[in-house]
Amino acid sequence: MGPVFGPTTPLTTAAPTERSDAARNRQLLLDAAQQLVRADGVDALTMDALAKHAGVGKGTVFRRFGNRAGLLHALLDHSDRKFQAAFMFGPPPLGPGAPPVERLVAFGRARLSGIDIEGAMRRSAESGEGGARYTGAPYNTLKAHIMMLLRETPVHGDIPLLADILLAPLDSGLVMAQLATGSYTIEQIGDAWERVVRELAPATGQ
Amino acid sequence: MGPVFGPTTPLTTAAPTERSDAARNRQLLLDAAQQLVRADGVDALTMDALAKHAGVGKGTVFRRFGNRAGLLHALLDHSDRKFQAAFMFGPPPLGPGAPPVERLVAFGRARLSGIDIEGAMRRSAESGEGGARYTGAPYNTLKAHIMMLLRETPVHGDIPLLADILLAPLDSGLVMAQLATGSYTIEQIGDAWERVVRELAPATGQ
Repeated sequence: MGPVFGPTTPLTTAAPTERSDAARNRQLLLDAAQQLVRADGVDALTMDALAKHAGVGKGTVFRRFGNRAGLLHALLDHSDRKFQAAFMFGPPPLGPGAPPVERLVAFGRARLSGIDIEGAMRRSAESGEGGARYTGAPYNTLKAHIMMLLRETPVHGDIPLLADILLAPLDSGLVMAQLATGSYTIEQIGDAWERVVRELAPATGQ
Repeated sequence: MGPVFGPTTPLTTAAPTERSDAARNRQLLLDAAQQLVRADGVDALTMDALAKHAGVGKGTVFRRFGNRAGLLHALLDHSDRKFQAAFMFGPPPLGPGAPPVERLVAFGRARLSGIDIEGAMRRSAESGEGGARYTGAPYNTLKAHIMMLLRETPVHGDIPLLADILLAPLDSGLVMAQLATGSYTIEQIGDAWERVVRELAPATGQ
């Protein structure tokens, strides 16, 4: 009975009544914010820094996002929707056109590199969600995708539970803790995840 | 650099200077609190209800635990140490004496039934920990145990990363969300986890 956010939800953060130039400006601000985070980390993302980087007045940023928490929320949503577009409509192996196991592996790798870049932001959002995390739209959009791919493989067992099991190790807090030990790269964390996927969901006829 | 809590830590919640009758009383109060939670859920556990159930004055409960949050914290710690004693020193298959894969499976099942009983308490404690969860003693005690068992199997790959992957789906918030759908029992959630363990870590010579 949670909010509905399926494959048919339009991939825009703009409300239907938002004027298209406002939507475009919002998009430009979010792209600029994403650049700032990728370049200097989430701590560098302040309302001031964003205004300066995007070449707009500070008032515009505040009117658009309310405060820094609102900006972070909008940015994660922006990033989630970009990822969703990539795994639903983008080029293979993440998008359609590759065998399901290759799409699963590409999904894990892409998710992990998103954590590498936006982890601090994502972790604070996820921990704020508490138990609601697993009933919310972002989690269930990812889960629905994993379930769809698993159903295309000869895997046996309960598909929704297997999807939860595969998503659980992609938790931002866990991956950031693994990175913080200094013992692992995102590549190696991806290797371990890929190995589990390949043992659980053998490729069809390969 | 986190707190040290390894296999050599004494399995008592009493500080070394605490008098033994005080330690015993604390233990009796925690056992009574655990009974209350198992019988009526975590919401039934108030300072008042505990005093009544244990047959002591309300002042004793407050002096011992400070407030309800302190009581919940002490209770989880009590429960963690009981579980630790069971997987380190208890009877097989959870304790020593069974093949490693059977011990892994018993560990997952025991952990899941702990979530079934104490989930609401554990979830609130885990979400409060945030990113510190994966560097803290409780998580790493469990992880060290899983790593030890994995090393006794012919599993290949990075053992610490595999231990994280196996522990991730035993997250309280996730398991409670799975139970809350009404579609799964703890037994079925355990079946899915067991299946992953058996595929990843094949039993030696069986």
